[in-house]
Amino acid sequence: MERILIRADYLLPGGENWDTIRDAELLIEGEVVSYLGTRREHPIGGVDRIIEGKNKLVMPGLINTHTHAAMTLFRGYADDLPLMNWLEQKIWPAEARLNKDDIYWGTMLAICEMIRGGTTCFADMYFHMGEVARACLESGIRASLAHGLIGIDGPQESEKSLQVSRELVSDWHGAGDGLITVMLGPHAPYTCPPQYLEKVMTVAGDLKVPIHIHLAETRGEVEECLNKWGKRPIELMDSIGLFANQVLAAHCVHLSEDEIEMLVKKQVSVAHNPGSNLKLGSGIAPLADLLEQGALVSLGTDGAASNNNLDMIEEMRLAAILAKGFRENPTVIPARDALKMATRNGARSLFLQDGLGMLRVGSPADLIILDLNKPHFHPFHDLCAHIVYAAAAADVEFVMVKGRILMEQRKLLTIDEEKVLQEANERAIRLTR
Amino acid sequence: MERILIRADYLLPGGENWDTIRDAELLIEGEVVSYLGTRREHPIGGVDRIIEGKNKLVMPGLINTHTHAAMTLFRGYADDLPLMNWLEQKIWPAEARLNKDDIYWGTMLAICEMIRGGTTCFADMYFHMGEVARACLESGIRASLAHGLIGIDGPQESEKSLQVSRELVSDWHGAGDGLITVMLGPHAPYTCPPQYLEKVMTVAGDLKVPIHIHLAETRGEVEECLNKWGKRPIELMDSIGLFANQVLAAHCVHLSEDEIEMLVKKQVSVAHNPGSNLKLGSGIAPLADLLEQGALVSLGTDGAASNNNLDMIEEMRLAAILAKGFRENPTVIPARDALKMATRNGARSLFLQDGLGMLRVGSPADLIILDLNKPHFHPFHDLCAHIVYAAAAADVEFVMVKGRILMEQRKLLTIDEEKVLQEANERAIRLTR
Repeated sequence: MERILIRADYLLPGGENWDTIRDAELLIEGEVVSYLGTRREHPIGGVDRIIEGKNKLVMPGLINTHTHAAMTLFRGYADDLPLMNWLEQKIWPAEARLNKDDIYWGTMLAICEMIRGGTTCFADMYFHMGEVARACLESGIRASLAHGLIGIDGPQESEKSLQVSRELVSDWHGAGDGLITVMLGPHAPYTCPPQYLEKVMTVAGDLKVPIHIHLAETRGEVEECLNKWGKRPIELMDSIGLFANQVLAAHCVHLSEDEIEMLVKKQVSVAHNPGSNLKLGSGIAPLADLLEQGALVSLGTDGAASNNNLDMIEEMRLAAILAKGFRENPTVIPARDALKMATRNGARSLFLQDGLGMLRVGSPADLIILDLNKPHFHPFHDLCAHIVYAAAAADVEFVMVKGRILMEQRKLLTIDEEKVLQEANERAIRLTR
Repeated sequence: MERILIRADYLLPGGENWDTIRDAELLIEGEVVSYLGTRREHPIGGVDRIIEGKNKLVMPGLINTHTHAAMTLFRGYADDLPLMNWLEQKIWPAEARLNKDDIYWGTMLAICEMIRGGTTCFADMYFHMGEVARACLESGIRASLAHGLIGIDGPQESEKSLQVSRELVSDWHGAGDGLITVMLGPHAPYTCPPQYLEKVMTVAGDLKVPIHIHLAETRGEVEECLNKWGKRPIELMDSIGLFANQVLAAHCVHLSEDEIEMLVKKQVSVAHNPGSNLKLGSGIAPLADLLEQGALVSLGTDGAASNNNLDMIEEMRLAAILAKGFRENPTVIPARDALKMATRNGARSLFLQDGLGMLRVGSPADLIILDLNKPHFHPFHDLCAHIVYAAAAADVEFVMVKGRILMEQRKLLTIDEEKVLQEANERAIRLTR
């Protein structure tokens, strides 16, 4: 079992503890953290490798709880358009041309970008998810995958889609010694009527996997739901018993007070996507209200066609400052809460194992190292504040997932990046001409 | 006169023209652009230096129209606090300890960060502004400087402050062959009563320099102004004739419809600071309304104690997406409008010479080169959209101001950066203990 020792000027264990450990060392044995603390007087011996972190900071990897990775292929293809034009005239026709290989290469492009920005785990909902799983295993990034389910394309298509999901679970759930987990992915209330959702719930219950769904993203969705079912989206989901399952609900922008209470009471995980919600004109989610009521909220970038990057540091910053501006109160979502949303809450939101999303003895070694030797990190008043309010994706220098080094000195070690960029450009031309 | 030829795969001239020129070349002779266009069949001869830009993009430098540069020394010192605690218990006591050398080094830290993020010009309002001018001349960055004027510290202090401003104009306005310009900097309506502002206006008129002021930043300011003077801030400024001068108004968050009309009619330049306005809980400015009415709006980062970085690419993105989310309309502030705010509108907002903030034959050679060889720039669907919605400060690889190269391959050529970071850390400890 390989033993890697990281010595760093600063270490943030995370979880409930965002105090900085100075002159820290962290030992990784195989896939897990086996020691962390201040540097010991007697050096740790018998290590295979020492990583020196002068002017560097070690922290838990970032967890992106909502994206559609392969949509990187449509980054910049259709911006500044009304939502329905964007979908109907641009995104859906282009998506209809996507083949399995496109999904693989588009996901690889997303993974390059995510690793470069310190993301060590992501939740994906799209299709041809076996290709996504393959890209994750090859690159070494952790992921929770869901095949997007649509329940309005007729009974045959709907049943076929459920069958694809069952196969995704049997083929990939737990693959890579737990690197890959699977959820069921009913797209949204407006594409999955209650009757269909009940089927999804049954399958999720049988297979013991959580559900990943878009909820209450736009004002239009809420209105349509009220017109059709006499209930708002969260109310409707509650009424059909969806929340008896483990549920990850993406967006949750337009919520009544009662709905916030339901999300809290039923322990629904909320994936907050401030960048996408702003850019698509969906609105501003009541993040401070959700957290004050005790909801479990994590952060997602959404797909690169609606963000347009997969930068979790930016998403942390945006979540924290947008909530302050929206509430006209600078004290809501302090830096440490934003950090927690992007790490520990992410792991909990994806129903992943204990110890993930923070650094403890026994935690899976999913961690990143930031290079602090940049003007925007100076002076060193408060490193947590700096990470949330001043840092950038490019400050991430080293990424490890489950003890495997994925990036070192900003070189990707598990991916042929040049090939990925070239494939992405070539495929994008075919998909959008 | 030195002749530098830049060859680049992509060139954005900017101004009113955000079409991309492919396989471009741009010739700089001395301080100005003397040719730009597609690469000519017969190579341009007699050049001293050729800069190759394979997979690179040349565009106008970014212009930050509102900051307090030396406040980098307080970055991360006081976050997530109520505004008045932040000011009274943290920022003001620390500012009272600032000496001339602190201002010089704090400004140098800001300049390091700004150059690294592609900013070629900034508007500063602070004190010991001669030190700021010195830092700008040494580093080569363009700046418009204002000494912050407070009119409520008694007649002697107020008059002294005006005298300092007069000296700043006579010592530095036009220095560095036009690199430095000077404005008068009455801080805000709540620190500068009408009687004092009238004196400022007289001096500005005599010296023929514009005025840089904070206006309508918080809801509290509007209420106080209404209570004290029976008018809202913009109304009050209009009523005393301030807008007969050239005025750069920072923030303009809380505006009535009438006030928006006044800003447009009187051709007041608005410096929009979305990051600071969110982070301090000031609110969300009606950017889309301002632009639709025809206001001249540029972008500022504000100081690093309230942002907490000086990243103009981030500010562009935030301006564009925040307006969409606030209006629940994805079509407002398209990418090209955000680019224009950060470049050409910046130059116009600072009342600088024609041709600045865009690349034309005869323009001052203030330009930046971005390295597109990154996952988040792929695929190449729309480079303007990528710069606004996906790029990062660290993508800027080369910076030139007035024909002088300030950064090349991300190395700062005019500043001893290591020394600056060290000074900043040491001074910060003294200032905040």
